[in-house]
Amino acid sequence: MTGWTEGDDMWGGAAAVPRTALDMDALAADLPRGTHLRDGAELYALLAGIAAAPHDPSCAWVDLVAPDLPDDLVARLAAVIEALRPPPLAPDPGRLDRLRGELARRGLDGFVVPRADEHQGEYVPAQAERLAWLTGFTGSAGYAVVTQRHAVLFVDGRYTLQADAQARPLGFEVCHQATTPFDQWLTEALEPRQRLGFDPWLHTVSWLEKTRKTCEDLGAELVGVTDNPIDALWTDRPIAPLGAVLPHPVDYAGEPSAAKRARIADLLAKEGDGAAVLTAPDAIAWLLNLRGGDVPHTPLPLGFAVIEASGRVDLFMDGRKLTPAAWSHLDNAVTLNPPDELGARLDALGEQGLRVRLDAGVANAWVLERLHRAGVAIRRDSDVCALPKACKNATELEGARTCHRRDALAMCRFLHWVSVEAPRGRLTELDVIAEIERQRSRCPLSRGVSFDTIAGFGPNGAVVHYRASPATNRVVAPDGLLLVDSGGQYLDGTTDITRTVAVGQPSAAMRRHFTLVLKGHIAVATARFPEGTTGSQLDPLARQFLWRQGLDFDHGTGHGVGSYLSVHEGPQRLSKAPNAVALRPGMVLSNEPGYYADGAYGIRIENLIAVQPSRELPPDARPSLEFETLSFAPIDRTLIDAALLTPPEVAWLDAYHAAVWEKVSEQIDPAETALRDWLLAATAPLG
Amino acid sequence: MTGWTEGDDMWGGAAAVPRTALDMDALAADLPRGTHLRDGAELYALLAGIAAAPHDPSCAWVDLVAPDLPDDLVARLAAVIEALRPPPLAPDPGRLDRLRGELARRGLDGFVVPRADEHQGEYVPAQAERLAWLTGFTGSAGYAVVTQRHAVLFVDGRYTLQADAQARPLGFEVCHQATTPFDQWLTEALEPRQRLGFDPWLHTVSWLEKTRKTCEDLGAELVGVTDNPIDALWTDRPIAPLGAVLPHPVDYAGEPSAAKRARIADLLAKEGDGAAVLTAPDAIAWLLNLRGGDVPHTPLPLGFAVIEASGRVDLFMDGRKLTPAAWSHLDNAVTLNPPDELGARLDALGEQGLRVRLDAGVANAWVLERLHRAGVAIRRDSDVCALPKACKNATELEGARTCHRRDALAMCRFLHWVSVEAPRGRLTELDVIAEIERQRSRCPLSRGVSFDTIAGFGPNGAVVHYRASPATNRVVAPDGLLLVDSGGQYLDGTTDITRTVAVGQPSAAMRRHFTLVLKGHIAVATARFPEGTTGSQLDPLARQFLWRQGLDFDHGTGHGVGSYLSVHEGPQRLSKAPNAVALRPGMVLSNEPGYYADGAYGIRIENLIAVQPSRELPPDARPSLEFETLSFAPIDRTLIDAALLTPPEVAWLDAYHAAVWEKVSEQIDPAETALRDWLLAATAPLG
Repeated sequence: MTGWTEGDDMWGGAAAVPRTALDMDALAADLPRGTHLRDGAELYALLAGIAAAPHDPSCAWVDLVAPDLPDDLVARLAAVIEALRPPPLAPDPGRLDRLRGELARRGLDGFVVPRADEHQGEYVPAQAERLAWLTGFTGSAGYAVVTQRHAVLFVDGRYTLQADAQARPLGFEVCHQATTPFDQWLTEALEPRQRLGFDPWLHTVSWLEKTRKTCEDLGAELVGVTDNPIDALWTDRPIAPLGAVLPHPVDYAGEPSAAKRARIADLLAKEGDGAAVLTAPDAIAWLLNLRGGDVPHTPLPLGFAVIEASGRVDLFMDGRKLTPAAWSHLDNAVTLNPPDELGARLDALGEQGLRVRLDAGVANAWVLERLHRAGVAIRRDSDVCALPKACKNATELEGARTCHRRDALAMCRFLHWVSVEAPRGRLTELDVIAEIERQRSRCPLSRGVSFDTIAGFGPNGAVVHYRASPATNRVVAPDGLLLVDSGGQYLDGTTDITRTVAVGQPSAAMRRHFTLVLKGHIAVATARFPEGTTGSQLDPLARQFLWRQGLDFDHGTGHGVGSYLSVHEGPQRLSKAPNAVALRPGMVLSNEPGYYADGAYGIRIENLIAVQPSRELPPDARPSLEFETLSFAPIDRTLIDAALLTPPEVAWLDAYHAAVWEKVSEQIDPAETALRDWLLAATAPLG
Repeated sequence: MTGWTEGDDMWGGAAAVPRTALDMDALAADLPRGTHLRDGAELYALLAGIAAAPHDPSCAWVDLVAPDLPDDLVARLAAVIEALRPPPLAPDPGRLDRLRGELARRGLDGFVVPRADEHQGEYVPAQAERLAWLTGFTGSAGYAVVTQRHAVLFVDGRYTLQADAQARPLGFEVCHQATTPFDQWLTEALEPRQRLGFDPWLHTVSWLEKTRKTCEDLGAELVGVTDNPIDALWTDRPIAPLGAVLPHPVDYAGEPSAAKRARIADLLAKEGDGAAVLTAPDAIAWLLNLRGGDVPHTPLPLGFAVIEASGRVDLFMDGRKLTPAAWSHLDNAVTLNPPDELGARLDALGEQGLRVRLDAGVANAWVLERLHRAGVAIRRDSDVCALPKACKNATELEGARTCHRRDALAMCRFLHWVSVEAPRGRLTELDVIAEIERQRSRCPLSRGVSFDTIAGFGPNGAVVHYRASPATNRVVAPDGLLLVDSGGQYLDGTTDITRTVAVGQPSAAMRRHFTLVLKGHIAVATARFPEGTTGSQLDPLARQFLWRQGLDFDHGTGHGVGSYLSVHEGPQRLSKAPNAVALRPGMVLSNEPGYYADGAYGIRIENLIAVQPSRELPPDARPSLEFETLSFAPIDRTLIDAALLTPPEVAWLDAYHAAVWEKVSEQIDPAETALRDWLLAATAPLG
């Protein structure tokens, strides 16, 4: 555990095409005088960084080069960017042996390769895809352990099939985390005095401390490395992404960054903390009202920050990715620093004598070790921005309502289209995905999808995290259920909605299962609960009707959702997994119970909901909370067995459908008469 | 953290009366030849140990002296035992200063004094009442921290009033653990380089590791002491109890100890563990089919054990407390060792090269440190006996049904008595307690109460852990609710039941609240849920109807219950607090939702329930579980607002009352016609 705070070259990497292959100096010479770029080398480095970020349809990257570029120059730059895109990772079974050789040279008996990057987010940039490089596995969660004898990939239930297909050919055994937990595996595989390596940048403090205990209990040693052996072997590893960073206007954020910083500073001061280290990019994006584009589907600029109880912020982020608008948006209480100066700033906290608040479940182990070495007193607590960010303000909630209203129109157009196209017998899952994404892209303020659309027909609908591909693509016909889970990013909010619709004649079992899922959905939508109640406590309400029939579903009932940020956002969630975070007014969650008949069909009914204080309570009541439903799209009436619903459940459904009609019908173009007729029927009362 | 495995004189202490004050040699000389006692000193030590255990109405202690003693000699011995009883602890504010002096001498800046003993059970012997000695606080949970500047007692919500009354006069500030968690307090109070002491025998491994992190984060040090400073100051601290240990017959246990040991050995071997260290006395009592009497209300012999994967057991227990029946019950695969040889046995595990399974949430820190020092490889997991013990076998479940049937008669006689006596206007809470305990003591196989009876009328019923005393004793009249929570220990099982009955005319609010609680009780009683479901997931089912009205109750819905063992038994429970243990067939729990109107009345409806596999399931169902209700006593029909119940709820209640009638009426003496009439009316259908 020694020495690993020395090297911090996490921002290295290589572009896909060497500079010498491109005539960068000529291109640089054509740039107007307003550019900050001094030569072809600087231009090349910038464009390679832009190429290492996901494609940006808004072309905000142009502002990173120079203001007011002529179209032909933009086209030339765009062509270079495309040339510089990191090529898809090609699987290579030789990497495992090379890693073993590297470990042996370093005196390590094993090494842990997580999917996570330094920020522990759901999406990582291309340069952090170490797990995919080594194992071929491209899922969004998992980690591998390599020793001289073992090579094991640990994944959760979503990914066992995919991991098997991708990683086994590269020499990896696949373990299901639930049946073979990593700690248990270590206990069997690790021997006394062995040295297990890990990269402290890529693991949370909590992971480190748990794993260190396991190793110590076995008489083995957990060793932090100063430079990642994967990075030493991955010679064409992409460089750090430079997705364009823009200000998030206060019209959408609802609170100026300065006010947020004052509020966070207050929270720190009240607890007696001198500063907090922020390692989660969504926390920083929220705090500074910035949005970026370093990872897919989520407008995140990757970076770190330190906020002091004075409200002063040090931001550690590559300045080249800030647009001029972002530069001028940051006031002088925010100092921009190169990413590699984070360590020195942590050392300075020790000299300042400031006690630091740190989230051990989010912060990486490198940060904790550096703080310990600097003699900084630490107080563990949640990320100081996590809860304020989760509790949306009035503007953000209004933005959520507004973008959901537009999203509802896109959904209704899409569902109507399905009702017309599916009976023709030629619709495929990939067509379905293209259409819903097309409908959303037409919406004002659209900024792309909030995650890869799931569209599964028949048996494919029963695969909870199904991703349609040309190999699996099914025709949406003749009889069966079509499940579509999709969402959009909008400047004023983030959406996520699932509808399951019958194609052809639904069976009695389909209708019974759909209605049981609907009862659970309604139980959550109408729940009232005292302040202090957690999402884990509400989760069973969604399952109770399925349980009575001996049924269940194997995913959470709901996840938190950001405001033009991550579609999966903590700290709140509705799930079987214990979660100690009490729900609070302003939190937005999904409400998505389901049922999956293996090999036959899948059912899920998902709306987003916002936590609101209960207003009509008896005098002896405690302060209580309830939900406001945000998503509006018809719930397929042909799949409902009304005999299984109680009168209050029928009343909820009818009122919901009346609201769908009201919100969507007024947006429908007068020429869309078929859509109007369809919507009227789809939202008719059940009774 | 060094050096504290050296001293292990945890079994010291002093008897209340010195031997010289009693003519022990004369008494010893009168003992028959069959005794093992060699002189007055040995007799004195034995009787002092018996006196340090709770009173034993079964007089099993006589067997510890000699077989077949004449009555007059038993009376003389009993008189000595009474003389040797530890006197009640008298509060002394000087102890805090003396402790501070002792800490200063030892170079410690602070010290943590928990209520727990070495075994982390709910009840502790007199010699372990260090927290009460220091702070005056006599509650069953809490801990104090003393520094030169601070003296703080941390308790939970049950105990804040009591702690304030008892500990504040002795110089202690009282903190509510929920609002001021210990870790947070430490973060404020502890300074860099300070040394906080703790006694590693008295804290779990989990506590140690969490607190050590907090200290390290602050740059402070957590220091294990080799001898407890309280023990150094508490000069008249009682000696270790010698409650008589008896075999628990297989007719009640359902499985011979040898078979249990083989089963546990199999569990160890299957996981590749060489041994397990057992520190929980109820685990050992279950494994060896022994029952004892070292602590109140629970038939526990205190001790430690090591079980190897061969099935061989080393028991660490004072042999003097084993009755001849217990001696001959232990076969030659169980070796009895003096308690102070535990450390040497742990060292030997290292020499044997056996990997050890250890429960970090139960085992004390001394054990872990000793194992680490001995170079023993450790695998953390739950106490290997906890789950097998919690899952009652067919004999234990049959015993539970049988003792509950007898308990039901006692409850009905008691409830009938209340219905007759309360209207006379002179009944008090203390009378109520005496009567229910008298009724239970008449039951065959009774072994006393399983906890101190709670009987609260009117506002006292709203105090969840109310203990009636002459100072608080209320007359059970005129109008109001009487809440009685009581239970018995029987050789064939343990009971725990709460009934709330109306005295005089109940108000509409009382009936509404009672009915909401009843709906929650029925929701749990009739729940069906898939295998893998935890008690935390079922807890909200009990609350949902109260929640809808903005109401709730501030305790768990249910706790595990032992089989003639602890009335509070893990690992399962139904509670808001996260609990990762899946319910399994054979587990016994309480189902006890409530509602408390502060200053007015309390409502609780409690039955014990046993987990059973669901037998009637549709073909597409997952393996599921449901509950069998074990307790039978009328639920006050005058408190039920039938308009609030659904038809299935009414059906459950009527069926339950029919079962009460069936099980109890056949036990009623023909002369008890008034009881019979009362029961018939009390169990009549609601409709």
